[in-house]
Amino acid sequence: MKADLDRLMEERNLDGLMVLGDSTGNKVLNYLTGGAHLERALVVKRRQGPLTLLHGSMERDTAARTGLHLVDRDATYNMYRLLEKHQGNRLAAMVDFLYQVMQDQGLAGRIGVYGTMDAGAAFVLLRQLQAIAPELEIVGEYEDSLFALARETKDEWELDQLREAGRLTCLIMGETQEFIQGHQARNGVVQNRDGEPLTIGAVKAFIRSRLAFHGLREDHETIFSQGRDAGVPHNSGDPAAPLRLGQSIVFDFFPVTASGYFHDITRTWSLGYATDEVWEAWAQCKEIFDRVMASLAVGQPCREPQLMTCDYFEAKGHPTVRSQPGTREGYVHSLGHGIGLDIHEEPRLSHVVGNDTVFQPGHVFSVEPGLYYPERGFGVRIEDSVAFNQAGELEYLSNYPYDLVIPIPGA
Amino acid sequence: MKADLDRLMEERNLDGLMVLGDSTGNKVLNYLTGGAHLERALVVKRRQGPLTLLHGSMERDTAARTGLHLVDRDATYNMYRLLEKHQGNRLAAMVDFLYQVMQDQGLAGRIGVYGTMDAGAAFVLLRQLQAIAPELEIVGEYEDSLFALARETKDEWELDQLREAGRLTCLIMGETQEFIQGHQARNGVVQNRDGEPLTIGAVKAFIRSRLAFHGLREDHETIFSQGRDAGVPHNSGDPAAPLRLGQSIVFDFFPVTASGYFHDITRTWSLGYATDEVWEAWAQCKEIFDRVMASLAVGQPCREPQLMTCDYFEAKGHPTVRSQPGTREGYVHSLGHGIGLDIHEEPRLSHVVGNDTVFQPGHVFSVEPGLYYPERGFGVRIEDSVAFNQAGELEYLSNYPYDLVIPIPGA
Repeated sequence: MKADLDRLMEERNLDGLMVLGDSTGNKVLNYLTGGAHLERALVVKRRQGPLTLLHGSMERDTAARTGLHLVDRDATYNMYRLLEKHQGNRLAAMVDFLYQVMQDQGLAGRIGVYGTMDAGAAFVLLRQLQAIAPELEIVGEYEDSLFALARETKDEWELDQLREAGRLTCLIMGETQEFIQGHQARNGVVQNRDGEPLTIGAVKAFIRSRLAFHGLREDHETIFSQGRDAGVPHNSGDPAAPLRLGQSIVFDFFPVTASGYFHDITRTWSLGYATDEVWEAWAQCKEIFDRVMASLAVGQPCREPQLMTCDYFEAKGHPTVRSQPGTREGYVHSLGHGIGLDIHEEPRLSHVVGNDTVFQPGHVFSVEPGLYYPERGFGVRIEDSVAFNQAGELEYLSNYPYDLVIPIPGA
Repeated sequence: MKADLDRLMEERNLDGLMVLGDSTGNKVLNYLTGGAHLERALVVKRRQGPLTLLHGSMERDTAARTGLHLVDRDATYNMYRLLEKHQGNRLAAMVDFLYQVMQDQGLAGRIGVYGTMDAGAAFVLLRQLQAIAPELEIVGEYEDSLFALARETKDEWELDQLREAGRLTCLIMGETQEFIQGHQARNGVVQNRDGEPLTIGAVKAFIRSRLAFHGLREDHETIFSQGRDAGVPHNSGDPAAPLRLGQSIVFDFFPVTASGYFHDITRTWSLGYATDEVWEAWAQCKEIFDRVMASLAVGQPCREPQLMTCDYFEAKGHPTVRSQPGTREGYVHSLGHGIGLDIHEEPRLSHVVGNDTVFQPGHVFSVEPGLYYPERGFGVRIEDSVAFNQAGELEYLSNYPYDLVIPIPGA
């Protein structure tokens, strides 16, 4: 959590931090600024020093609400003048700006750099900064970065955001179920009173309208995929397809609140009735889901539930990512992932080599066993998101019935 | 435009391209894949060769719809196995993966790298890739990159997306005006039939519901700011504030379509009546807006309309970013910016040193003069988005009345 920044800097022997980039899609910047909309922002920090935001003058009201120490960039380091000084060379002007800021803010020694930007631009920018400032060491971290670690454990404010995200997500899942059940079955298809088939596209339009009503956003398209498409985990569903009875529907729902926090839940539905093979796959997913949920505890290695799930599915005769890496059938992914400002973050419930994380208070993550048989026309997945609160107790953030079969009038 | 990629690679002496990262917020990747949702994607291209997408197995249906050449990453370069090989070192595994792909795809020589990721992660990743492959030259570009240039001119398909974004945005602006006018004025405040004041927050909730209905998204918060707040260009407005008569309201509206293309329009409204100083500032903005619009032509330097606008406002006695860099009063920004998959992209209608761009067919950009006096409690801005089509003709993408005063029943 944010309170760990100084400790993490010390552990990594970092004397300073620098976070670059526009706020859009920049999760580290959003983490520090509460999601404020900022263009070409810069946050810097010395170890034991305050978080300081350099912001554009036009964004001074937005910047003031972040609660960070502020420097008006345009008033202090005017970019028009820097570009004049460097004959219009934007790279040289930016390097000069960054170096001036580091000197003015007392950043010296080993400086960790973070924030989202173009990969090639970051490469030349940081290389050039390192070249003009050989007394500094510009440090990049790949994946297990200081911020990935800080963000991996949520503080109480963040847990509240995640609880609220779960509450609203489940509310909309319920509204969506009711909306579908407000239709009738006819000739194996769900249709409205006028006899028009209800399509996946219409269900998604309904979901979007409810998201807007409740103040949530769809960061990327909701998965509502049916039959064969449900057998390809990230297939989001064919909008033109009518809802059919007796097909597995994977409804994987991951909206984001205005404060930027995600929820993640999946239910598998079969409208009217379910076929035997979908029932069997679903029951297996539910059984291992329940076993995993009952086993979760602070101190347990995060890879363990994945190994337990692979053991279970392999014993039932399914290929898994462990027994057949790269398989497209059976259990084809890892068991879960952390959730926060990113839909996929630390911790990872994966058996991958190098995953030595153990569950801790503040971990918020999904648990999502699934079985996929696209050639046989189905896929199933069950997913809830859970949290270990500060007391180390497991909290369910997704509270929604697991029912596979959803009754439809006339079916 | 995309058809220029080979020419631009030749001009920059690049033998290959590599685009990295998740698709969320990754505009270059979205540009090449039509906005497909992909995690840890990689697009590579040799000069004169095809665009090739390496995608996760779970995303194979999504990948197939991009129309690019495809390689199933999990089947060909399994990350579980790469991590085993590198004892769980994610950086080493990723460098190994990239180098294998480059060899398999025949990428040699000077390789430009693009795509959005963590700045520090990009720095170490590309430095390490360069270290193990000294026969290659890893090239990063800062700002005026090959993709910034390609994206700067829109092809006919993109122009159609931008036209549609403009049509829908103006439709919702009209619905918003009607919604406000469906209220009554009382004691200087706009209120509903029950006598409750209409707040900026309620207007924004209405806007969001209409965005959802029309299939648009709010990438960042709509600006609907009133009085003093309208005098700070990027203040998005106080949600708790009731709409008041006779205050300048800056309504800067920049939604994004499902295909990822933005529109950008601003109107300044004053409900019921306008004060003399708002009228005067608005009339000046409208005059220079009209002059600029009449002057726009292919071949004209993009900095010229900004110089014209500074000349005009300075002659009227206002400080400008040219006469007083860093000013918070008067004309405090540049005249406009390109619009496409980013809300701010090339070309820039700025007088900044180094801006030598001239208008070309395919340029789509905003024109937005404004005057800001927060201490005097107002700001005004007028903005339309326009395009030079392939014939070099100026097309208006924003078609909405400019009226400053919006009548309110009872006012």
